[in-house]
Amino acid sequence: MTVQETRGEAELRRDYEALGERLARRGVEIEALKRRAAAFGVAVPSWGVGTGGTRFARFPGAGEPRHIFDKLDDCAVIARLTGATPTVSLHIPWDKADPAALRQKAAELGLGFDAMNSNTFSDAPGQPLSYKFGSLSHSDRQVRAQAVEHNLECIAIGEAIGSKALTVWVGDGSNFPGQSSFTRQFERYLEAMAQVYAGLPDDWRLFTEHKMFEPAFYSTVVQDWGTNYLIAQELGPKAFCLVDLGHHAPNVNIEMIVARLIQFGKLGGFHFNDSKYGDDDLDAGSVDPFRLFLVFNELVDAEGRVDGFHPAHMIDQSHNVTDPIESLMTSAMEIERAYLQASLVDRQALAGYQDENDALMAAQTLKAAFRTDVEPILALARLEKGAEIDPVAAYRRSGYRAKVAAERPAVAGGSGGIV
Amino acid sequence: MTVQETRGEAELRRDYEALGERLARRGVEIEALKRRAAAFGVAVPSWGVGTGGTRFARFPGAGEPRHIFDKLDDCAVIARLTGATPTVSLHIPWDKADPAALRQKAAELGLGFDAMNSNTFSDAPGQPLSYKFGSLSHSDRQVRAQAVEHNLECIAIGEAIGSKALTVWVGDGSNFPGQSSFTRQFERYLEAMAQVYAGLPDDWRLFTEHKMFEPAFYSTVVQDWGTNYLIAQELGPKAFCLVDLGHHAPNVNIEMIVARLIQFGKLGGFHFNDSKYGDDDLDAGSVDPFRLFLVFNELVDAEGRVDGFHPAHMIDQSHNVTDPIESLMTSAMEIERAYLQASLVDRQALAGYQDENDALMAAQTLKAAFRTDVEPILALARLEKGAEIDPVAAYRRSGYRAKVAAERPAVAGGSGGIV
Amino acid sequence: MTVQETRGEAELRRDYEALGERLARRGVEIEALKRRAAAFGVAVPSWGVGTGGTRFARFPGAGEPRHIFDKLDDCAVIARLTGATPTVSLHIPWDKADPAALRQKAAELGLGFDAMNSNTFSDAPGQPLSYKFGSLSHSDRQVRAQAVEHNLECIAIGEAIGSKALTVWVGDGSNFPGQSSFTRQFERYLEAMAQVYAGLPDDWRLFTEHKMFEPAFYSTVVQDWGTNYLIAQELGPKAFCLVDLGHHAPNVNIEMIVARLIQFGKLGGFHFNDSKYGDDDLDAGSVDPFRLFLVFNELVDAEGRVDGFHPAHMIDQSHNVTDPIESLMTSAMEIERAYLQASLVDRQALAGYQDENDALMAAQTLKAAFRTDVEPILALARLEKGAEIDPVAAYRRSGYRAKVAAERPAVAGGSGGIV
Amino acid sequence: MTVQETRGEAELRRDYEALGERLARRGVEIEALKRRAAAFGVAVPSWGVGTGGTRFARFPGAGEPRHIFDKLDDCAVIARLTGATPTVSLHIPWDKADPAALRQKAAELGLGFDAMNSNTFSDAPGQPLSYKFGSLSHSDRQVRAQAVEHNLECIAIGEAIGSKALTVWVGDGSNFPGQSSFTRQFERYLEAMAQVYAGLPDDWRLFTEHKMFEPAFYSTVVQDWGTNYLIAQELGPKAFCLVDLGHHAPNVNIEMIVARLIQFGKLGGFHFNDSKYGDDDLDAGSVDPFRLFLVFNELVDAEGRVDGFHPAHMIDQSHNVTDPIESLMTSAMEIERAYLQASLVDRQALAGYQDENDALMAAQTLKAAFRTDVEPILALARLEKGAEIDPVAAYRRSGYRAKVAAERPAVAGGSGGIV
Repeated sequence: MTVQETRGEAELRRDYEALGERLARRGVEIEALKRRAAAFGVAVPSWGVGTGGTRFARFPGAGEPRHIFDKLDDCAVIARLTGATPTVSLHIPWDKADPAALRQKAAELGLGFDAMNSNTFSDAPGQPLSYKFGSLSHSDRQVRAQAVEHNLECIAIGEAIGSKALTVWVGDGSNFPGQSSFTRQFERYLEAMAQVYAGLPDDWRLFTEHKMFEPAFYSTVVQDWGTNYLIAQELGPKAFCLVDLGHHAPNVNIEMIVARLIQFGKLGGFHFNDSKYGDDDLDAGSVDPFRLFLVFNELVDAEGRVDGFHPAHMIDQSHNVTDPIESLMTSAMEIERAYLQASLVDRQALAGYQDENDALMAAQTLKAAFRTDVEPILALARLEKGAEIDPVAAYRRSGYRAKVAAERPAVAGGSGGIV
Repeated sequence: MTVQETRGEAELRRDYEALGERLARRGVEIEALKRRAAAFGVAVPSWGVGTGGTRFARFPGAGEPRHIFDKLDDCAVIARLTGATPTVSLHIPWDKADPAALRQKAAELGLGFDAMNSNTFSDAPGQPLSYKFGSLSHSDRQVRAQAVEHNLECIAIGEAIGSKALTVWVGDGSNFPGQSSFTRQFERYLEAMAQVYAGLPDDWRLFTEHKMFEPAFYSTVVQDWGTNYLIAQELGPKAFCLVDLGHHAPNVNIEMIVARLIQFGKLGGFHFNDSKYGDDDLDAGSVDPFRLFLVFNELVDAEGRVDGFHPAHMIDQSHNVTDPIESLMTSAMEIERAYLQASLVDRQALAGYQDENDALMAAQTLKAAFRTDVEPILALARLEKGAEIDPVAAYRRSGYRAKVAAERPAVAGGSGGIV
Repeated sequence: MTVQETRGEAELRRDYEALGERLARRGVEIEALKRRAAAFGVAVPSWGVGTGGTRFARFPGAGEPRHIFDKLDDCAVIARLTGATPTVSLHIPWDKADPAALRQKAAELGLGFDAMNSNTFSDAPGQPLSYKFGSLSHSDRQVRAQAVEHNLECIAIGEAIGSKALTVWVGDGSNFPGQSSFTRQFERYLEAMAQVYAGLPDDWRLFTEHKMFEPAFYSTVVQDWGTNYLIAQELGPKAFCLVDLGHHAPNVNIEMIVARLIQFGKLGGFHFNDSKYGDDDLDAGSVDPFRLFLVFNELVDAEGRVDGFHPAHMIDQSHNVTDPIESLMTSAMEIERAYLQASLVDRQALAGYQDENDALMAAQTLKAAFRTDVEPILALARLEKGAEIDPVAAYRRSGYRAKVAAERPAVAGGSGGIV
Repeated sequence: MTVQETRGEAELRRDYEALGERLARRGVEIEALKRRAAAFGVAVPSWGVGTGGTRFARFPGAGEPRHIFDKLDDCAVIARLTGATPTVSLHIPWDKADPAALRQKAAELGLGFDAMNSNTFSDAPGQPLSYKFGSLSHSDRQVRAQAVEHNLECIAIGEAIGSKALTVWVGDGSNFPGQSSFTRQFERYLEAMAQVYAGLPDDWRLFTEHKMFEPAFYSTVVQDWGTNYLIAQELGPKAFCLVDLGHHAPNVNIEMIVARLIQFGKLGGFHFNDSKYGDDDLDAGSVDPFRLFLVFNELVDAEGRVDGFHPAHMIDQSHNVTDPIESLMTSAMEIERAYLQASLVDRQALAGYQDENDALMAAQTLKAAFRTDVEPILALARLEKGAEIDPVAAYRRSGYRAKVAAERPAVAGGSGGIV
């Protein structure tokens, strides 16, 4: 049972028609919106199809993927049912495998590869030096070299499978006032990243990601967009800032940061998710859907103004209490919804109200777009490309989870000992 | 020009019909919803029709009301155009006037009086003792007595005009660690409030309001719902907690506080507004409309469970950059919208998902209600009770603001000297 | 090398004497302070002697304790070198062992047992039912029964080893709006806790702990002191609230919460630590030492006013980048320092300034106490009870860590797979 | 009565000697520290000597200054008693006066003039165009021109009285999502500021100040250090960022921002104050003295590394419940204390611990400096330059407030009507 009206194709087409009439009254052509919806895509993170956890516990789900090939199978389900997630973003070392095998598997499933993600926030088994006290900004040159090397390896793997970007997030920071010199630590980070940047192919982009705190709890090297901007500026034209919606201080106006980075040519893309407290990694749009809309309002606005504007769309979430496939499908659709609602904003009217300082009507112009229930457009776009009107319902009917649970052995809980 | 489709009655009825068909598929009868919409009301604050300001400046608007009778005229416009604001909440001493004259004016305008509001956070001209260092919690017994007396006077005025509640918000607190003894200050507050409570008529309710900070910047006597609950518990069965949406610490889950206060029988009502940073007093639903919906989700849920549940609905906003009448109309409609969307939640399905820990479908159950564009219901309910399909457009056409601007002399800016 | 002057006994006595002269000028007798210092104690958590981690990684240290007996050895080192940590707080199931063996080991080491801690925030191996969707508040009666049973077992173990209190912290909450009914979830929690309370021996206390977020990221059942107070009130006279300094919303005035709980007879005790962002579990006093002092200012103030006032002092920290023994020693001394500085406050002068609203001098009264460097008193008190002037330096000289590292096999990293 | 030991010169010299012996054991020469203390200075804001207020009320004090000449008299008292505040920072238009008269008055009082402050956050009487919807970023070119003109006038006045810097803080922003285009608004700001910059004398510096919120409550043009850095970078080498300690998002690591701005050559200086919630403008060091110390730790560290490093030290506070002169004296001494404590940090040892990732000892190195009670050094430095051992006590004895209260008529309360 689903709470949305179980809407057959006939009902869907009636709803679409009724919406089309309303939009036509505003001068909006519904077919053009449907084409935008159909063309929209967001990358799924390979790590997102496993069940997440916290430092207190991880409660495994049934049929969790054992390796990258299982993960790709899960991602393909998401792509097939929603039609909105054509690519997968890999995380090294967890997703390391023979590149040819990866390419072939992805081709079979109709998937592509999005940005590569390196990991220097935990120690891999057998790794010679530890990242306990940092990686790219570590005080020991050898640790930094190891971290640089790892990032270069991620690029090499990415090249072999057709990726065009590297995302670097480090947990480096400190837990005590005085533990690290802010300045020397950042100098070391910049020097190491310059070596990574030097290894970047010409047609690649480098995304650096800022985050206020966690796993470091007093200071973090790339703590906010200001530092992130400095990095992108220091490194060069292929370096851009990645915005994760959950990585900011309380109350921060994220959509404004997005606008600033666009204005100064350094917005690289997003890790979409939602948060109420910290880096909660909740499902996109689940806690503050209007904020997600306001972010897309900036993106759609920039589309028409900024040459070569093509920010990367990626999901980054931790699914602790849901079936990860269901959460990723729902999130992809929420992101698409925000994009489509933002596409409905009457930008000419908005600019007029802004120029006249008619704050109330400017605000209502955004609200009118946000309030529009565009689900009929999204659903019909899905249907027409062979995906599902109601992907979650279709997934539940399919029995996929039970099937893989039978094939894939259960995974242990993990991390129960940290308090 | 308005950004929403300029929707005539014919279009509105078509939209209403199309929505009715969709809702019927979910088993929801649209006429019942329209009746709920028609019956909903929220009080307008008398101080809300003037232009607000900050400690840095106040930028007056045209035609600001000179006194309570002007304010009632403005409130009547809001009530007439929206059909959603039948009552006005007065603030003493600013709104002091002959009770008979107030009653007569209100009767002429078809308005009633909601909760009375006392003021001990600033010194009135000619007031013998200053509230600089507190009022109901002041270390000096005489200052406390003066503050108690003022509250009793507010009750007396309220009785004379038909009000049934007193709202008490104090700015008492401290600006330095050590300035006040938390304990003795709260003891004094409770003792003084017990005297106010003793003066409350049998059929009145007493609302106390908590706030984290401002105007006190280190500690505030009634700083959060925990302290507010203690107050209501100490005072007695006619004492209840008032929740202002902008008075909480960053990231706090306000809808959960609402649920707790309902559960323990102490939710009195609301000061609706929105905020991003502090007590921003922005228009309700303008920054986080989903949060407003989640608050109403608790209220509608309690309707069916809790005997005699009738929380007070009041707006408390500061209109610094808009025409206050427009902001109050828009806010009243946003509040009504959240109420109606919350009424759409399939509570039986929701309870089922909650019991089964189907977090995804439970969340989608709320989202399905929130995403429903109920504007046709709200607009038709307005039309049928003689109000306007589009109140802001009608107000602008009416020329009301220009008319009163010609009658009411301009007011000085105020407070420009505080940095 | 240590950064503090390497102070021999002769220098220490000179510093003590100079401080004594200064304090005498303020009418303070230094010997009385030294006796207070000597009598002060704070409990060490058994889990604190292992290296902590985050959801991203855990970087093990050398010589980590393998079981509760190793942990007790480490705790004994802390107690012997600082003279400030006479007791240990156990966590079940991790510390389960034969009670007689525990008692004997503790007796040999001169240690006692503080509050017992239950764990229903992760699944223990072999546990029949999962806490994935909650424990004491779970929608399934059987899961709640299992969680109650576990708490009763903790009491039984505690009785066998001489503990007198049970601390209950649950991670129960939700990750999505709608996932749980706030009201029914809390009703279930209260019902389950009433069963735990019923099993409490007459001379025991029950401590419940509130926390804003993590591991639940949309709502938490015991989210703040308001809810915690309701719990203690509902359960009965042996139920008290535990305050963890890192479990509050940003900007919250924690010392005021402490004062409120004292005033209403429900302050049970503390989990001391420090935090900058969330539940960072940093070393006590490392980020905001003045806040720690202000908390103790309330405690010392209550000592003289409140009959039978004896809040529990416990440390709860996660040591991710330091030797846990060093962090715990330093933290215990910071807590003792705050206590002693708070003991220096001239309470009569303070009350006078408060009554006269002399905010500046009231604030300076606290600052005068906080600024006093009481290290000579603390160090001499340590020396006189057979502990060390500089415990960290003595610990490093002792070679203890190297010795246990040789005896205890290395532990795997853990939790590296959660992103 | 003062809470600090009433310390005569004899006692002071004994305390100084005892401290000198302790410092000598750490290899620190106390006389050098005293010379640093004697050389330290911080500017007093002209607006700080009046009583501040909030949007709710202003409670005037006795003997408030009527104009800039009264203000200079008050500032001279602060300078004379503390020996730490040689300069005054003016705010235009409030402090407009004949430059020759200003120079002469200041010379008589032994005062100099620090940075000029412009005001475009409120409308001055008679001002042709309103700043209600912004100033330097206003959508109307004429309003921007007026704001530019005002800033150029501030420079002209400053040149005439010997100032060498202009501080620009604007309240520009928006109260509603959609009210302003983030991008166009910032473009307009940059264009206007370029005109101000063009008018800057060669030996002047331009300080721009960021602030998260208030008076704008949805977005602020210069919202954080990231945007502030972009401004300084766009404008040129004479443009620098000003850091006000109360203008950041909750939990933000301010000392790290200071380090970043130093590293990239754009730290201009400070508006010192303290805050717990927002821009509380509390007395420096009154709420979080360790944070103030950590900021100075960065400044003292940079002294030795960065050529031509001379950040501006200014106080910016609102004194609502204290005598402003007492608060400013106390704050100046707190700032000096933090500076001196930061000067005590053993930087060589610290760097060693940082390189070895000895987090505990690195942290203790800072704490050892912070814990040192340097009051004897500060007091003796004051005494030797003709100021007071205890400036607040001396001020109270002097009867200055009563004297000016008799001369200066009482000022009305102000701003009581804004709720």
